[in-house]
Amino acid sequence: MENIDPIERLVAAFRSLPGVGLKTAERYAYSIIKKDEENAKEFADAIINAKLKVKYCKECGNYTDSEICSICAKRNPDIICVVKEPKDVAAMEKVKSFNGVYHVLHGTINPLENRGPNDIRIKELLERVNRLKTKEVIMATNPDVEGEATALYIARLLKPLGIKVTRLAQGISMGSELEYADEITLTKALEKRSEI
Amino acid sequence: MENIDPIERLVAAFRSLPGVGLKTAERYAYSIIKKDEENAKEFADAIINAKLKVKYCKECGNYTDSEICSICAKRNPDIICVVKEPKDVAAMEKVKSFNGVYHVLHGTINPLENRGPNDIRIKELLERVNRLKTKEVIMATNPDVEGEATALYIARLLKPLGIKVTRLAQGISMGSELEYADEITLTKALEKRSEI
Repeated sequence: MENIDPIERLVAAFRSLPGVGLKTAERYAYSIIKKDEENAKEFADAIINAKLKVKYCKECGNYTDSEICSICAKRNPDIICVVKEPKDVAAMEKVKSFNGVYHVLHGTINPLENRGPNDIRIKELLERVNRLKTKEVIMATNPDVEGEATALYIARLLKPLGIKVTRLAQGISMGSELEYADEITLTKALEKRSEI
Repeated sequence: MENIDPIERLVAAFRSLPGVGLKTAERYAYSIIKKDEENAKEFADAIINAKLKVKYCKECGNYTDSEICSICAKRNPDIICVVKEPKDVAAMEKVKSFNGVYHVLHGTINPLENRGPNDIRIKELLERVNRLKTKEVIMATNPDVEGEATALYIARLLKPLGIKVTRLAQGISMGSELEYADEITLTKALEKRSEI
């Protein structure tokens, strides 16, 4: 690495981030060079630190820096919210009223990408549901083809065990405009319409 | 720093980059965690390395990892292209036909921000022009108020020394649409129209 120009090397590093092209990577690289040394060092340390300390929670599969994540450690396991990826936990946590725990599948069933039920954390979910005597499982996988299929697959496994399985409601988003809602969303919104 | 969640700390680091908001910073942070350890380490090293190795070229003021940058070391000093910032050198270098050297002012004259001629590298430019027996100075500062004023100021200093001072042509951009060109650009384009 010694012969590569340091700026080019840094630009290449930034380009490895999702959605970052050459122009943006160059802007980021120049901003690093303009930082004072302490700030640049803190940036590099934050990367190393995150990579070394962040691991998967042994219970739910979310990112954590201890054995068991802070959510599994203290919240009510009566309700498990099943999501595809750790970042979905962060999104769901914006709902302050949810007091249950999560289960991260780390993927969805996707035959096109050769990912079957055994390639995602379904077995672990069944084991937890049994052990924790969970009453309800909320399927919060994405509302796309793989997410729907995965939700249905898991629901079919859990229902015979007498567990309530629910799915996040689908409909038009708050603050959006009807004009821009797609056909499938509108169809779902119409089907599930409620009296006011 | 030990008590902060490693992911939050990394997100905060990414938010310090120009134009990066919370959502984007989170996406970047998650992508770092998904990298293998070697790649994450290379990323952190690239930051430290750039910060430690990159300094200013003693001649032109551009970023370099040696005393004199590779452009000053081997190219023709008969023509000096004057730019505001190091990233402008990178932009100009896309013009493969330019074989002269650069001079980075590190700013423009801006009375509103209390930056006068002595706060940017004008003295160094005059010294170089004298020493290198430069024949032409191309003013490639940005086509905004400060850039224009700085170009005019420097031109007035150089012309009495018998040096040719030129300015990048202004007009409509290649591939752009007239409809979106601003009034001042169109005025300039009309003034400088050429016969075909």
